[in-house]
Amino acid sequence: MPDRILRAMSLPTIDHRGPEFAVLGKRVLAGVGQIFQTRHPVVIYPASGTGAWEAALSNVLSPGDAVLMYETGHFASLWNKMALRLGLKPEFLAYRGADAQLPNAPGWRQGVQADQIEERLKADTQHAIKAVCVVHNETSTGVTSDIAAVRRAIDAARHPALLLVDSISGLASADYRHEAWGVDVTVSGSQKGLMLPPGISFNAVSPKAIEASKRARLPKAFWAWDEIIEMNQGGYWPYTPSTNLLYGLAEACDMLLDPTHGGLEGTFARHRRWGEGVRAAVRAWGLPIQCADPQLYSPVLTGVLLPEGVDADAVRRLIYERFDLSLGTGLGKVKGRMFRIGHLGDCNDLTLMAALSGCEMGLKLSGVKLAASGVQAAMEYFAGHPAPVALQKAA
Amino acid sequence: MPDRILRAMSLPTIDHRGPEFAVLGKRVLAGVGQIFQTRHPVVIYPASGTGAWEAALSNVLSPGDAVLMYETGHFASLWNKMALRLGLKPEFLAYRGADAQLPNAPGWRQGVQADQIEERLKADTQHAIKAVCVVHNETSTGVTSDIAAVRRAIDAARHPALLLVDSISGLASADYRHEAWGVDVTVSGSQKGLMLPPGISFNAVSPKAIEASKRARLPKAFWAWDEIIEMNQGGYWPYTPSTNLLYGLAEACDMLLDPTHGGLEGTFARHRRWGEGVRAAVRAWGLPIQCADPQLYSPVLTGVLLPEGVDADAVRRLIYERFDLSLGTGLGKVKGRMFRIGHLGDCNDLTLMAALSGCEMGLKLSGVKLAASGVQAAMEYFAGHPAPVALQKAA
Amino acid sequence: MPDRILRAMSLPTIDHRGPEFAVLGKRVLAGVGQIFQTRHPVVIYPASGTGAWEAALSNVLSPGDAVLMYETGHFASLWNKMALRLGLKPEFLAYRGADAQLPNAPGWRQGVQADQIEERLKADTQHAIKAVCVVHNETSTGVTSDIAAVRRAIDAARHPALLLVDSISGLASADYRHEAWGVDVTVSGSQKGLMLPPGISFNAVSPKAIEASKRARLPKAFWAWDEIIEMNQGGYWPYTPSTNLLYGLAEACDMLLDPTHGGLEGTFARHRRWGEGVRAAVRAWGLPIQCADPQLYSPVLTGVLLPEGVDADAVRRLIYERFDLSLGTGLGKVKGRMFRIGHLGDCNDLTLMAALSGCEMGLKLSGVKLAASGVQAAMEYFAGHPAPVALQKAA
Amino acid sequence: MPDRILRAMSLPTIDHRGPEFAVLGKRVLAGVGQIFQTRHPVVIYPASGTGAWEAALSNVLSPGDAVLMYETGHFASLWNKMALRLGLKPEFLAYRGADAQLPNAPGWRQGVQADQIEERLKADTQHAIKAVCVVHNETSTGVTSDIAAVRRAIDAARHPALLLVDSISGLASADYRHEAWGVDVTVSGSQKGLMLPPGISFNAVSPKAIEASKRARLPKAFWAWDEIIEMNQGGYWPYTPSTNLLYGLAEACDMLLDPTHGGLEGTFARHRRWGEGVRAAVRAWGLPIQCADPQLYSPVLTGVLLPEGVDADAVRRLIYERFDLSLGTGLGKVKGRMFRIGHLGDCNDLTLMAALSGCEMGLKLSGVKLAASGVQAAMEYFAGHPAPVALQKAA
Repeated sequence: MPDRILRAMSLPTIDHRGPEFAVLGKRVLAGVGQIFQTRHPVVIYPASGTGAWEAALSNVLSPGDAVLMYETGHFASLWNKMALRLGLKPEFLAYRGADAQLPNAPGWRQGVQADQIEERLKADTQHAIKAVCVVHNETSTGVTSDIAAVRRAIDAARHPALLLVDSISGLASADYRHEAWGVDVTVSGSQKGLMLPPGISFNAVSPKAIEASKRARLPKAFWAWDEIIEMNQGGYWPYTPSTNLLYGLAEACDMLLDPTHGGLEGTFARHRRWGEGVRAAVRAWGLPIQCADPQLYSPVLTGVLLPEGVDADAVRRLIYERFDLSLGTGLGKVKGRMFRIGHLGDCNDLTLMAALSGCEMGLKLSGVKLAASGVQAAMEYFAGHPAPVALQKAA
Repeated sequence: MPDRILRAMSLPTIDHRGPEFAVLGKRVLAGVGQIFQTRHPVVIYPASGTGAWEAALSNVLSPGDAVLMYETGHFASLWNKMALRLGLKPEFLAYRGADAQLPNAPGWRQGVQADQIEERLKADTQHAIKAVCVVHNETSTGVTSDIAAVRRAIDAARHPALLLVDSISGLASADYRHEAWGVDVTVSGSQKGLMLPPGISFNAVSPKAIEASKRARLPKAFWAWDEIIEMNQGGYWPYTPSTNLLYGLAEACDMLLDPTHGGLEGTFARHRRWGEGVRAAVRAWGLPIQCADPQLYSPVLTGVLLPEGVDADAVRRLIYERFDLSLGTGLGKVKGRMFRIGHLGDCNDLTLMAALSGCEMGLKLSGVKLAASGVQAAMEYFAGHPAPVALQKAA
Repeated sequence: MPDRILRAMSLPTIDHRGPEFAVLGKRVLAGVGQIFQTRHPVVIYPASGTGAWEAALSNVLSPGDAVLMYETGHFASLWNKMALRLGLKPEFLAYRGADAQLPNAPGWRQGVQADQIEERLKADTQHAIKAVCVVHNETSTGVTSDIAAVRRAIDAARHPALLLVDSISGLASADYRHEAWGVDVTVSGSQKGLMLPPGISFNAVSPKAIEASKRARLPKAFWAWDEIIEMNQGGYWPYTPSTNLLYGLAEACDMLLDPTHGGLEGTFARHRRWGEGVRAAVRAWGLPIQCADPQLYSPVLTGVLLPEGVDADAVRRLIYERFDLSLGTGLGKVKGRMFRIGHLGDCNDLTLMAALSGCEMGLKLSGVKLAASGVQAAMEYFAGHPAPVALQKAA
Repeated sequence: MPDRILRAMSLPTIDHRGPEFAVLGKRVLAGVGQIFQTRHPVVIYPASGTGAWEAALSNVLSPGDAVLMYETGHFASLWNKMALRLGLKPEFLAYRGADAQLPNAPGWRQGVQADQIEERLKADTQHAIKAVCVVHNETSTGVTSDIAAVRRAIDAARHPALLLVDSISGLASADYRHEAWGVDVTVSGSQKGLMLPPGISFNAVSPKAIEASKRARLPKAFWAWDEIIEMNQGGYWPYTPSTNLLYGLAEACDMLLDPTHGGLEGTFARHRRWGEGVRAAVRAWGLPIQCADPQLYSPVLTGVLLPEGVDADAVRRLIYERFDLSLGTGLGKVKGRMFRIGHLGDCNDLTLMAALSGCEMGLKLSGVKLAASGVQAAMEYFAGHPAPVALQKAA
């Protein structure tokens, strides 16, 4: 976490019913609107991201509603499981390419196939399906999905289903346009691109979603949008907010939106460039990138597939023990098959070089044959592709 | 917040899936069990206290279930409102003393009347009522309720209803015995007696409550106990925990349980003594204490009723502007009629003397006639009643 | 220490030879000039205040030089002792009032007697005396001295001696005018009115002092002004500065000079008012104030003389143990006879009420007979004398 | 700075005259004794390292005393300049190898030549020379000197001169044995191996030095050992200590001496290994290491000489601007010719890989021809030479 944010969070807690708080509340709400790229309300919860998944579903759906979900990885699967627990009827679409039945979950190397969505919605002539739920940036794989294409698919099918999107790990690192892409509810959290500790989460909502919430019958109280949106008018929340996290959030918005560092687009460009550098290393090693579609590379993290027979978790453990570097583990269907290198939040060329050095040494020590030095390739990329000056230092 | 806790929370965040985390998780779970005085599970949520109210209801109840609630003040009323929103059928008992219809909510000066509970449950021969919900320490009034008496009332009525208790502001300052008092679900939060920022909340649960949760049909996912309790066996949580708040929680438990400061009983004794000193001041001023029943004085805060015609919020504002002291406002039915002096968390004799001085000066400047100096009375009490040495400094 | 300053000091340390440092250096040097009320150089040392005493002497004096010092209390005595150790010939004037020989150091209840200085300098027709050294605000007694009067005395004697003043505890709380008062070297430190931790100290210097430093022959290197003043032109220091303390110093200057809080004069007015309130309490108790001359009351601290036969240190100990309040001890000739109540730095009406309550309870518990309640008197003063709004909150 | 130390320094400041302080004082004094490897007193000053240089000279020498110093680099030169300013008569020995007159200060690539010292002292049959002053680890060059050899040279000459050593940057990273090596005064500071901010500095003293200080006539007060050593018996200091830095120092000693990380010897081994890895990189690049004698490589930092015609400061600037990495500049006679890579304090294999990557990219971007990849060489070294487990993580 950047020092600026840590310091902001250490300010003394103010009375959440007093006039100073309202100034903070309005500042934060204006800031997150810009981050989500929307003029419509963004609901902030004093709860972790999983809670915001539930909030998205329970505000717009009723018991037994059919929803269309799409299996892009571990987190899409967890959201699907949650929908089931809440008494919804989720249908879980998945990749059906020629190789779909091969081992190692080939579907987890792809994004949402919008044509499948369109096809399924067209078939739903009764409009039983109430919502389409997809993940923007699958944290478990490093694959993004084309959310605008999903919107076009729904429109092409002339289907009234709402579009619900999880951008927990994408927001504020990858370009994400809640309003322009016609998303009805975007779910996000504080602990990824916003560079905060976990503890607050979000629902950005469209007018159509708000309309739907008035008729939706899943029980809701803590997650209910209505009271929060109403009290937010004045800069307050109906119950005790996480004031110190809101201080941090205000600071994070200032940092991410700072025009002297290129604003939001500058932030996105930094992460795209870092992703390129990391993938240059993985390619040099001769290891497959988990994301099979170059259009969908995540600017947030890169999944690295290890050769058959290598236990990726043993490699991760060795790297942690020898070099004090924590890599993301393979989750769910890719457990033990891959690890993940993050390029989110507050990093820079040299922190990524440190991570790549640790990976390269650890892979070799684990007996993995590498085609060439990834560290060398990344240095060539970073040295050869200077970031525009304004983007150089995010904090 | 005590420095010790601030420092603990500033430790670098560790991987919530790694082995070090399990050590922290188990330490925290053991600590909070002692704080709730229970050997049964305590579920910790990465969400504020309001969320834990919802969790308590949605884990053990089904749509349309009747629940018996009791109006002791503003927070009991909000919980009742939440039960309604969740589709339950709450029945809201209230004080029925001779003066019940007089102005200024006389019922908000009393605790739960256990005999009413007993009477009502006896009348419910069909056992339609599934839960009794009461507040242990009403933060809006400074009145506690006798939870053991409520348990006895349920038992005397031979009624199977579950007992759900909110001790959000009581826990860790006032004696509270989840297990010995036969409570089924206790709701609490981090930001009062535990001296942490808001952001984590609790459900302490009984075996009977766990049984009930298996049949309960309110939809739940984020709040569902089962997965959390299961993963807690290993010291983990099913979703991103608020790691830094857990550091703070571990430290808070160490402080509160520290035998060299008298352990939990020492903590309770400190707050009882501070409450006595503050009430000595209020009595000297000649102002009524909001809590009309000396058996039920809160060791956490004291409500001070102002004379007819005095706007308590104007007094509070003057005190804030002149002396930089924030007092609790009157909420709901007592808005403008009273203010609240806190003696919770990390205070000592002199911080209370500062607060009482600010009140006394502010009351006089507001034209309130005071019978005598409350500051003088509090000094006499504190000087005349030394705290046992071991209790002197909590941190 | 104010949170603002703590946060400023926690910024990451920058390279003290880089361009960003020069910006900080110049900002700090401009700020301290305003605090000392001088346009001439202020030398900042990465050393505690005692070091700046030595710096003042060793920059302008030569081995064996005669200096005139004045015994106003413990710190004046320590400075005198230092002059001796450095091989100077200090002459230590002292109070010669009618009561001067009575017990309990009556001279320590008075300020510098400028007429004595004048008389002595007039007698020094050879101009053997090279410097007059006095303390502006005696921390051991709470007595200030009239520095402008000392300047007039030197001028009246037409004597070329330099005027060296210790304002370690006066600066930034009591009005202090290095240039207007014609002081040649002012010594100060970071840990009093500047609200910083100990670790940096100051010599504000006049052009005459700089001239003298060119001929002075006491060996000096670390303390030598010349190289520091020269490098300060560019915003740098010749050796490793305490960068994080300089961050804090920049913030402290901003706070103290902030026009929305009345600027420097606002700061002085706040401390004068606090001193008044505290002395109202001491008078009500019927205890003598250590400072016998109302013109010279310190706005920084108040010394309280205890009745014959009472061990002031035993009272202090009781207050510390019972109420966790640290009072200043009697030092040197007044050890055991008095204690000191500080009203410096970041205090407010209620922190002083807390301190006075602790004193009043502790005095009574120690068996000291009090004429009336000082706490009552202080409340009357504070309530009856509102601080101008702009001064209300310093931070 | 390690988090552990930052947190320790943020503890609330305690009264430096109270009993709790004595516990801290004694703990710190015991710890630094172990770090200096001496049973004799270590004097701690609330001042930066330059002050401790002055303290060493002024405690044991008299005006006009002859001292023998040795030019190993920029800091040795500054100490020599200070001795001159203090009115001593320093004789500044220098390297006299065959290449001594070549450009680029070949002498700054060598350590102290003990045989020169011996020869000079033997010639001083009158024992006019009172002290020999050398630098243990020249921060400007990355060359250490063999202090035990200097001691043997003095003894071989049967000369009574005191041995004064600057180990400001060596202490706590490189093996340093004040007592076993027969050093009389060791000068050090807080901001290098002790991982603290600047602000405290040290004189470790021998019984012989203490004897000498009783006869030495340079004026001294702030720096005088006698009062400090006397008050240290009780755990106190004669003037306001930097309490929060002492908290940090206590923590630093605990970390450095921690037997589970190999204790002091473990600390030294970590730095030796890091130095090896860095030098492997420099050798692969084909660039000369500033230190020409492999016996004297500094475990603290490595100086890298750039080819004739390359402006090292321009390279440093490019690296800073492109990669946000601050390298040490060439100082004094090697300005513009070299830069310095630090491997002191709280680093690990990957922070060094990050630094080496930044250097390698920056050198290439500056047009410097590199023989091979230093990054590759360092990875081979680090991967091939695992640190013993106990040394892996210092904090």
